[in-house]
Amino acid sequence: MRIAVLGTGMVGTTIGTRLAGLGHDVTMGSRSAGNEAAAEWARSVGGSVAHGTFADAADAGELVFNCTSGAASLDALGAAGAERLAGKVLVDVSNPLDFSGGMPPTLFVFGDDSLGERIQRAFPDARVVKSLHTVNCNVMVDPARVPGSHDVFVAGDDEDAKDQVRELLQAFGWPLASIVDLGDITAARGTEAYVLLWVRLMGTLGTADFNIATVV
Amino acid sequence: MRIAVLGTGMVGTTIGTRLAGLGHDVTMGSRSAGNEAAAEWARSVGGSVAHGTFADAADAGELVFNCTSGAASLDALGAAGAERLAGKVLVDVSNPLDFSGGMPPTLFVFGDDSLGERIQRAFPDARVVKSLHTVNCNVMVDPARVPGSHDVFVAGDDEDAKDQVRELLQAFGWPLASIVDLGDITAARGTEAYVLLWVRLMGTLGTADFNIATVV
Repeated sequence: MRIAVLGTGMVGTTIGTRLAGLGHDVTMGSRSAGNEAAAEWARSVGGSVAHGTFADAADAGELVFNCTSGAASLDALGAAGAERLAGKVLVDVSNPLDFSGGMPPTLFVFGDDSLGERIQRAFPDARVVKSLHTVNCNVMVDPARVPGSHDVFVAGDDEDAKDQVRELLQAFGWPLASIVDLGDITAARGTEAYVLLWVRLMGTLGTADFNIATVV
Repeated sequence: MRIAVLGTGMVGTTIGTRLAGLGHDVTMGSRSAGNEAAAEWARSVGGSVAHGTFADAADAGELVFNCTSGAASLDALGAAGAERLAGKVLVDVSNPLDFSGGMPPTLFVFGDDSLGERIQRAFPDARVVKSLHTVNCNVMVDPARVPGSHDVFVAGDDEDAKDQVRELLQAFGWPLASIVDLGDITAARGTEAYVLLWVRLMGTLGTADFNIATVV
């Protein structure tokens, strides 16, 4: 599959590398066509990968991962272009973290709205699925780093889009039974809020290689 | 032990009944001395229980549970009286839920502050421990309702107070290994935020008898 990965940070490079390893054609998008991090990533990964602007990547991808930082996501997706996102599955991995007050971060959208919803509203023809943002990027693409059973969430308004994301998550190593469908995109209010507990748990546990399991 | 339970709702009556069953002397506090819910509770439970105003209960208790609704907690604790709370362990079970916009609720304090911290600041001589508010009240006092291993959190500035709360939690049925100490009271920012995910999970799972386990 041709997949666009927007964002050249830890999350983007980790997901991009994993997707390339699974045989997908990955185009990494960033603000400028000559982005050094993206070029370095493409050189190191090899295989069928490319890099370019956000628009180049969105053009190339049949499915798009938003791995930009939350504060930059709406601008990055705007640069990618609504028309290039239309009809495509947009996996939103971002978190609305606000580091302006230092550590620990707070969230710049919260409660009766979420970044996932803002993105869906701004790009109504994209099929947004919020997922993976509740774990560290290494766990996202290799859940077995955390032993035992633990969960990842999906939320979005388009059932077929969630099916496609579930397939990718399973390819990453997530058992189908560990993929919890929280319903429509408004569930991002809950999963994005949880990230504040995640930050605290990371400090307590002294590792980012952890997750939560829903126990019923 | 003489324990005050502030609040006559589901949480207060459930915790009060459990504490009485464990042999503690429980005084339930409410806004007015003649509160019908508190009187009915005391009649139905029997044993060494009493009820009265918030101040009466705080006077009677060596340890205090705040089981009032989050929006009412600071007023209720003010009515209990800072001098009656001074030096005592104050287990804060409240959530800062804001139902003013209908369902689902949002939070009236969030991000760089929390209700747990507000209570600790307002009553600096109380030894606030935030705990139990991340599960339904029936699970609080009987964690075996949810099969398998799952966790409860404690957060607070006073180590001895957290030790006392850990003992009570174990009496409720929480294994010591399932009691996760998140550090000082600022951790309430994370656990209170998580409650938005809890609300969503309850809708998805169709039951309040669930919890999360931290998996490392």
